[in-house]
Amino acid sequence: MFELSNVQEKARLIAVARGREKADAVIRGGRVVNVFTEEVYPADIALCGDRIAGIGSYESDEVIDASGLTLIPGLIDGHIHIESSLLTPAEFARAALPFGTTSVVIDPHEIANVVGAQGVRQMLAASAVQPVTFYVMIPSCVPASEFETSGGAITAADIASLALDPRALGLAEVMNYPGVLEADPETLLKISINPKKVTDGHAPGLTGRDLNAYVAAGMGSDHETVTVEEAVEKLRAGMRLMIREGSVAKNLDTFLPLVNRGNLDRLIFVTDDLLPSDILEKGHLDHLLRRAVAYGIDPIWAVKMATINPASYFDIRDIGALAPGFKADIVAVENLRDFKTRFVIHNGEMVYREGRILARKSMRRAFANDLFHTVRIAPLRLEDIRIPAKHGLCRVIEALPGRIVTDELLVNPATLLGWVVSDVHRDILKIVSVERHNATGRFAVGLITGFGLERGAIASSVAHDAHNIVAVGADDEDILTAINEVVKMQGGLVVSANGSVLESLPLPVAGLLSTQSARTVVAKLRKLEQAAAGLGVKIERPFMALSFMSLSVVPKLKLTDRGLVDVEAGEIVDLFEDATGWAASAAAR
Amino acid sequence: MFELSNVQEKARLIAVARGREKADAVIRGGRVVNVFTEEVYPADIALCGDRIAGIGSYESDEVIDASGLTLIPGLIDGHIHIESSLLTPAEFARAALPFGTTSVVIDPHEIANVVGAQGVRQMLAASAVQPVTFYVMIPSCVPASEFETSGGAITAADIASLALDPRALGLAEVMNYPGVLEADPETLLKISINPKKVTDGHAPGLTGRDLNAYVAAGMGSDHETVTVEEAVEKLRAGMRLMIREGSVAKNLDTFLPLVNRGNLDRLIFVTDDLLPSDILEKGHLDHLLRRAVAYGIDPIWAVKMATINPASYFDIRDIGALAPGFKADIVAVENLRDFKTRFVIHNGEMVYREGRILARKSMRRAFANDLFHTVRIAPLRLEDIRIPAKHGLCRVIEALPGRIVTDELLVNPATLLGWVVSDVHRDILKIVSVERHNATGRFAVGLITGFGLERGAIASSVAHDAHNIVAVGADDEDILTAINEVVKMQGGLVVSANGSVLESLPLPVAGLLSTQSARTVVAKLRKLEQAAAGLGVKIERPFMALSFMSLSVVPKLKLTDRGLVDVEAGEIVDLFEDATGWAASAAAR
Repeated sequence: MFELSNVQEKARLIAVARGREKADAVIRGGRVVNVFTEEVYPADIALCGDRIAGIGSYESDEVIDASGLTLIPGLIDGHIHIESSLLTPAEFARAALPFGTTSVVIDPHEIANVVGAQGVRQMLAASAVQPVTFYVMIPSCVPASEFETSGGAITAADIASLALDPRALGLAEVMNYPGVLEADPETLLKISINPKKVTDGHAPGLTGRDLNAYVAAGMGSDHETVTVEEAVEKLRAGMRLMIREGSVAKNLDTFLPLVNRGNLDRLIFVTDDLLPSDILEKGHLDHLLRRAVAYGIDPIWAVKMATINPASYFDIRDIGALAPGFKADIVAVENLRDFKTRFVIHNGEMVYREGRILARKSMRRAFANDLFHTVRIAPLRLEDIRIPAKHGLCRVIEALPGRIVTDELLVNPATLLGWVVSDVHRDILKIVSVERHNATGRFAVGLITGFGLERGAIASSVAHDAHNIVAVGADDEDILTAINEVVKMQGGLVVSANGSVLESLPLPVAGLLSTQSARTVVAKLRKLEQAAAGLGVKIERPFMALSFMSLSVVPKLKLTDRGLVDVEAGEIVDLFEDATGWAASAAAR
Repeated sequence: MFELSNVQEKARLIAVARGREKADAVIRGGRVVNVFTEEVYPADIALCGDRIAGIGSYESDEVIDASGLTLIPGLIDGHIHIESSLLTPAEFARAALPFGTTSVVIDPHEIANVVGAQGVRQMLAASAVQPVTFYVMIPSCVPASEFETSGGAITAADIASLALDPRALGLAEVMNYPGVLEADPETLLKISINPKKVTDGHAPGLTGRDLNAYVAAGMGSDHETVTVEEAVEKLRAGMRLMIREGSVAKNLDTFLPLVNRGNLDRLIFVTDDLLPSDILEKGHLDHLLRRAVAYGIDPIWAVKMATINPASYFDIRDIGALAPGFKADIVAVENLRDFKTRFVIHNGEMVYREGRILARKSMRRAFANDLFHTVRIAPLRLEDIRIPAKHGLCRVIEALPGRIVTDELLVNPATLLGWVVSDVHRDILKIVSVERHNATGRFAVGLITGFGLERGAIASSVAHDAHNIVAVGADDEDILTAINEVVKMQGGLVVSANGSVLESLPLPVAGLLSTQSARTVVAKLRKLEQAAAGLGVKIERPFMALSFMSLSVVPKLKLTDRGLVDVEAGEIVDLFEDATGWAASAAAR
């Protein structure tokens, strides 16, 4: 806790605050947004090291001109899985900070599913010295499901150990709310063993006495709320409502009407998941602020929901406001309507100004070597992914545009020479899931509709939650080509056709993250989507859609390495509806 | 941190919240004040162990009828020195809980001045299992002054050690703000070494850049603010404003007009110091709530300032609100105007109902033996307290009614046979301060006006901040009689005349606290005041007034065991204005 340097640093901070020593820099001419009093007034901000020394009238040899600009506290995203951006913490920071982000609270749930506690440690290490401060919530539900094979697990003992990191703020979204409600000892142990005070909830649709039970167990927030009525109940029960607007789940329109002076301090803006293209095109939290103000929310209220409110919830006492002693995380915006960023100061350093990122990039390789070697499968042959035909109807996954839930169709499959085959005319294609962490040789084959491929295949090592390899294709050979390319790249996204790879994006870090910049990743993604479109794919964002086809905690029908999962029934089911213990279990060996 | 029982307890809490097991008790028929959403609505509250399991509709064999009543969270006093009540924690709790108090944040500054860190530990121990929860802020400025001899000191190492207690919340009011501003290493070390996040400030009149410096050093609150302009500045700088209304310092009238929706969450009601008579006659925080509502503050806002606001500031996540998982600290009041308490539940137990305290009293002796033996003086003889006459004017302390500041008068003293003597006609009396911790034989004699004694003397072992013995009298012999009686009682208040003791109140715990009930203490205090009045005393609350005559951190002229202190000049001065290095220094041997 205590460092000798603290006293010396504090002595200088005090001297600068008093005006006895010159500040390192003074921001002059701006109007300061005060989230404590909900005021805006002109004042200088004096910087000393990584801190704000004082707000008032100050001198320095270094004057930062903020004439005509409004100064707000650095924005804080209270809940985000940065893996969704496909970017490393370093590249995520460089992508987000031009939009005023200076802190994010990440839940490295995806990487933990690949390499367990080691993944969380690596994310902590890789995010340690960046122009955005990364706080970490420790993933609580890894693996997320018994119906697929993950590469890692987070135990209660891991949680106790990871919580020792000063940037670890608590326990991340406890998605296993049935486990909480049933008082599953392992789940309660994970909650109780967390020495930090914060535990995030995740309970779509939970209300009434079961909600009481979930809150009583320690859940402090929810970002999965569906309706306003449910939100009111959760707020009354003491939860913070995280109002989420991400690339997939969008709740801003639903919850902006809910904001009022009585509940304001319990509301937090978050994004949860952001595609890299959305960051570059729409921004980050500034996008939510614009939307809120356009809706009619008081701009200072909007700022509070992305600054002091998350800081209070997580009890981080030196971010989220512009005040003496606070971290010098300061964003200069043109006005409180557009929130167009003119410069960003993080920890007292100018990291972005007028379109240019000024933060230096670390040359150090961020992740340890073993994170670059996580994709291991047993050899997969053409004959392995054949489906022997049977009488009766097949269960077909129906991918729904823009949704992570799927539907189930019952279809008479196309067959050829005794095998069930992809049927491009009816858009009934093969989907394959291959365990890729430990080369167990476990895989499963199913049928899916909605992707629209007329030929070729797409494959990905991003497949929630266990991140095995998932592929959809019109042609078995192309499916294998795509899967093998994913393995060869040690993770990534692939489009294949006619036996060769058309486009690919390597995601070598745990099979989840690129090491490239957001701009490069977005350009590559566009090429992948164009190539997929060239093969007939009609679904929007096909790789994102693909990544949810294995998600066995969200209804209805999904395919994992263990087989077809009927999520509502909570069991593995056969591909053939009336099979007598044969089809899917044989396909999933 | 983690206890095995946690999981089992949580499992039962969850079962009760879900309605699967019966609650231990259900409060039915009341209207619940929700501080999260600023709403009031009818609901049952289900109790399980020391917690609230749920709010909604619940069953139990034990139904607590709250028909027609309003249920508010147990009240929290965010800053109080309970030594001012002269009561032990056990008796303070029994005095305050009928007024809806369920938690207090105490700063055991007084007892620490007598016995150092041991005093803080003893207060922690004595307050551990009581019908009110006692949290402790660790005294930061003991001794408070170099101009008097205290019995104990709190070092930085003590702070680090005391902070390990789970009920230690942080560092108490850093009164030594000049030390902070001058970056005194010992002061900064005390602040930096505190591993908890909260440090209370104490900086009357501090504004501008010096305020910035004080806040930058880590001060999170202030309860000594004088004007509204100063309050606005402190709030803007990020401090919590503690709005104090105690027995001595009263700020409610000044700051109620300041309360608005923008700053509400940064405002906290505290009492700082309460005389036992004020508790019995006016109440505790309920008195502040009544005053606030009568002024026109929204009743829910008033409740927030005494519940969730202090809980948020100290980051105590399970008190301050009525919600699942929170401590079952619940107050039933008749309405949100009078706040008349009908019952109080603390940690799930009914501790007060309809005029009766139901909490059982511990039979255990609360304090260790050595706390009952803290008054040690060297023999003091009549000739010791004589003042040799000199030419010139004497500095006379002028006690001001209801103030803790004094003035200085320059007076030609009455003399007799070469000695300066008390002059009852002009109300210029002798005042004596005797070191009483280590029998050093150190003492000082001065002159004072304002008490009005025509004969006899009064003495006390309560004398801020070092709590030496202080006495004022018309007669030297009676002064000695009173002082010796204080010693004999091992602390207390005494009125003497004609060589004998007229009335006395023993304060055997560190010379500061009675072991009696509030009612007994108040009755005894009244007798003391009547006896003093019989001797001619005109000043209101003479023993309280007396207790501030040694307070060498508040202007202007005070008397400690080291002599007459000119607080503004920051030095010991002679009794005779034009003395050449003689008078006071001789009197103070």
